[in-house]
Amino acid sequence: MSVNQTKNRQILLVRRPQGKGVASDDMRLVEVACTEPGEGQVRVRVIYISIDPVTRLWMNEDPPVVPPMKLGRVVTSMGIGIVEVSNDAGLPVDTLVHGFFGWQSYVTCYGTEVTVLPAAPSLPFTAHLSLLGPIGLTAYFGLLELGVPKPGETLLVSGAAGAVGSLVGQIGKIQGCRVIGIAGGVEKCRYLVDELGFDEAIDYKNENVSAHLASLPQTGIDVYFDNVGGPIHDAVVPHLNEFARVVYCGEISSGYETSKVTSKISSLDIIVKALKLIGLRVDLYYSRAGEAVPWLAYWALSGKLKHRVHLLDGLENAPEALNMVFAGQNRGRMAVQVSPVPGG
Amino acid sequence: MSVNQTKNRQILLVRRPQGKGVASDDMRLVEVACTEPGEGQVRVRVIYISIDPVTRLWMNEDPPVVPPMKLGRVVTSMGIGIVEVSNDAGLPVDTLVHGFFGWQSYVTCYGTEVTVLPAAPSLPFTAHLSLLGPIGLTAYFGLLELGVPKPGETLLVSGAAGAVGSLVGQIGKIQGCRVIGIAGGVEKCRYLVDELGFDEAIDYKNENVSAHLASLPQTGIDVYFDNVGGPIHDAVVPHLNEFARVVYCGEISSGYETSKVTSKISSLDIIVKALKLIGLRVDLYYSRAGEAVPWLAYWALSGKLKHRVHLLDGLENAPEALNMVFAGQNRGRMAVQVSPVPGG
Repeated sequence: MSVNQTKNRQILLVRRPQGKGVASDDMRLVEVACTEPGEGQVRVRVIYISIDPVTRLWMNEDPPVVPPMKLGRVVTSMGIGIVEVSNDAGLPVDTLVHGFFGWQSYVTCYGTEVTVLPAAPSLPFTAHLSLLGPIGLTAYFGLLELGVPKPGETLLVSGAAGAVGSLVGQIGKIQGCRVIGIAGGVEKCRYLVDELGFDEAIDYKNENVSAHLASLPQTGIDVYFDNVGGPIHDAVVPHLNEFARVVYCGEISSGYETSKVTSKISSLDIIVKALKLIGLRVDLYYSRAGEAVPWLAYWALSGKLKHRVHLLDGLENAPEALNMVFAGQNRGRMAVQVSPVPGG
Repeated sequence: MSVNQTKNRQILLVRRPQGKGVASDDMRLVEVACTEPGEGQVRVRVIYISIDPVTRLWMNEDPPVVPPMKLGRVVTSMGIGIVEVSNDAGLPVDTLVHGFFGWQSYVTCYGTEVTVLPAAPSLPFTAHLSLLGPIGLTAYFGLLELGVPKPGETLLVSGAAGAVGSLVGQIGKIQGCRVIGIAGGVEKCRYLVDELGFDEAIDYKNENVSAHLASLPQTGIDVYFDNVGGPIHDAVVPHLNEFARVVYCGEISSGYETSKVTSKISSLDIIVKALKLIGLRVDLYYSRAGEAVPWLAYWALSGKLKHRVHLLDGLENAPEALNMVFAGQNRGRMAVQVSPVPGG
């Protein structure tokens, strides 16, 4: 097969979504010829697309920080792939890479725009989607560097059965914390306690979060790792101890409609409890991956850090996968498989 | 005059205040005989009463952290005084001390309940009310340890003509920051720029704070030191830079009615700008006064750190002094003089 006959399937954003998640009319699936890689460029065959809630935020007309996605262009997202054609001597064919590949089956880009995956031959390849990638860095640096949990302290995690939350809780246990997770539904809560070793789980779909927190024999939260925002955030705030740290990692409860972000905390509470509230942006830690990945891999290999990946098969299912995350229907880190894993 | 004939004048809290500040019917001025100091106790003649906005918060029925003031008891506040009778060998007569003396002219307490004033013979005695006391520690540790300003960064201070704010801005200049102050009225704003060396002043009573911030040639705030909360806080938030630090020090705009504390910040803003919001409680730094006081005194003696004290004369004026602070009528650190300064 000659290179210039390779077809690229793409999902384009053609209308800005309203409300939570995306609608099928917001997207269009097209097939185009692959762009030829120029000098210094590579062609990457996409293997996995990361399904991240923040993708929905980036679809808005005026997202914070990043420029908005353009209508008629490929949806932005991170992914994992393999170099198939290379005009960059540093990235030979068959190199496994990650980067902002978008919702498409091939991407042609400069070699400087991709990052080589860390070697982790003893772990399953899906670990790159979870603990060895941005998800793992988010959990590692967010908890240890921003939350700074001490042994014996109480760590509360919302979105605890999700990709980041499940790692945060387990790293909290490794640090000697008492760990409480908030998740939606009996099955997820059982998973937290029985499989991941959380001390306690609160089922926000069937329980009053504030009442459950108040009923615990040892009350008060020292570190709150917030993946959801909204009413759960507001229910947690009165239970924060003096000197508590709140790590703001996600706002999934708002569906990332900017106008619906309403998490509230009183500045007087911040003062009288001497709280620290910290916003977590994982891109600030990419350059420090080398500090985190060995620990994450070591904990995973020694059985202390479990991860699970929820894969949908086929590029065309990316919008559905994103909606499943907003509906809390994913079981672990959500991703779409676009093409086969090498040797897999 | 024999010791047991000494009369103590006290202002008692007899009704919990409603609304901003206090009303005359909330207080009663009484005269009682001084309590005799027992073993290990001292009698302190109060010289100055500190007039702090937080006193109003403590008068509420359910203040955060501290137990509420009891009705019929002396209003709680800090003060400066001199030991007149001592049964504590470590605190000879004539020692200058500070502590929670309350709104009264004498206090009898254990020697362990007071702190000896640091020696600062070259500075005016009123410096103990401002830069050498909790006000100075608040500004020093709040700005340098929580705000962590770097040279060339932009520091914004609200309540900038107040006791804490005026020191914060000047310390910011010493650190090489560009400093903007928000204060109420032309006179205060002129004071900030002409007397204290602020780069810019915003008169919130006559200007739109947000519009003024947007109009500045070099926009974006790296450190916001918030003494006021409320609408000014909310107007500042959109102008925070990525990685900005917000130090929450006071909520004077609410009048410390707990229900009126409404400062808002979106958790999504916290995330996407990777903000750090930190609550400042000065009591956490009392034990570290020795780190700050030499610097504060040195800066003051070298003319880089000016302070002014606004004194009302007579215990009976304490409620009026507190109301003046809430009305923004004070010019510098507010205090009430209860008795003469030794040698003064």
